Amino acid sequence: MDRLQKQFAFILEADKEKFIGRQTYLSDGKRKENDAEHAWHLALMTILLSEYANEEIDVLKTVTMVLIHDIVEIDAGDTYAYDEAGKQTQRAREEAAAQRIFGLLPEDQGEKLRQLWEEFEAQETPEARFARTMDNLQPMMLNAASDGKAWVEHGVHLSQILNRNQRTAEGSETLWKYAQERFLLPNLERGTILND
Amino acid sequence: MDRLQKQFAFILEADKEKFIGRQTYLSDGKRKENDAEHAWHLALMTILLSEYANEEIDVLKTVTMVLIHDIVEIDAGDTYAYDEAGKQTQRAREEAAAQRIFGLLPEDQGEKLRQLWEEFEAQETPEARFARTMDNLQPMMLNAASDGKAWVEHGVHLSQILNRNQRTAEGSETLWKYAQERFLLPNLERGTILND
Repeated sequence: MDRLQKQFAFILEADKEKFIGRQTYLSDGKRKENDAEHAWHLALMTILLSEYANEEIDVLKTVTMVLIHDIVEIDAGDTYAYDEAGKQTQRAREEAAAQRIFGLLPEDQGEKLRQLWEEFEAQETPEARFARTMDNLQPMMLNAASDGKAWVEHGVHLSQILNRNQRTAEGSETLWKYAQERFLLPNLERGTILND
Repeated sequence: MDRLQKQFAFILEADKEKFIGRQTYLSDGKRKENDAEHAWHLALMTILLSEYANEEIDVLKTVTMVLIHDIVEIDAGDTYAYDEAGKQTQRAREEAAAQRIFGLLPEDQGEKLRQLWEEFEAQETPEARFARTMDNLQPMMLNAASDGKAWVEHGVHLSQILNRNQRTAEGSETLWKYAQERFLLPNLERGTILND
């Protein structure tokens, strides 16, 4: 029962991901999404789009990775993609959070999830590269669906998006090409993404 | 590109799960959760708790099942566990929704997800039984965390909960036992679940 109690302590703590807001609007543009909704969407995308991964991936491993990739934000908060000041302290805040949150689990599972999170951060395996591609494409898809609302709000320039997506093609060339054509280009044309 | 367009049509449509409210309050009791948040939580639980399944399960299959198990509610709406009138029309509303929503995908993937949804509904495989156990335990855990708020609001009796959970032990005896002891009993003792 001790093991199960630890597992439920973590599962209940994870509920707080639903309180962590992101900068991306949902497709209807009415409110912004939260970390749990975002992670669910990435898991679904991973299952449906794994056929486009540049390298073969272990789908369950990748799904597990995306399901927990933002859990440290329960303590560390969401750092917006283009918040340069926040990004400087992000790593230290997230390390401390990982220690506490994964530490709620029985040691074997806590260690396993923590390593998956580290792997995601390091982006050095096929699964981590594909997970990051999902993480980058999903808000792009939603921004495009809401006529670039979040891009307009933050006055985002194309160079910022391209800079952030330098490695998106490493997970999937096909999906990055699709995203450029379908999500970025139309918004660049109508000025909802600023040209440099 | 046609295949990818269909996949993204489905992935974008799925975003609407985030608009579908459930009756369960989040752990802080401040607002109710939505279908996407719920599905994310079930996926995480499936990965962490699969060791307690009565029968061996294919974890990726079960995770996929829970990720999409409520997607028909985009059209059919959420039917509350104890809404007897709504439950009479639920099946027909959900069948029509499945036709439309899974039909957005390329045929192979649409058929696969549709079959997984049917399998979940039928509860005749180890994966479907375990997924249903997750689906029943997660709101119980959240209700217990919010001091039975949703149970009190709906004046729920123990007999209703036990009736709804007649088959919860089929997915996992261990987890159903834990839920009774940790989630139900304390709320029965303090009257937030009504004794019959």
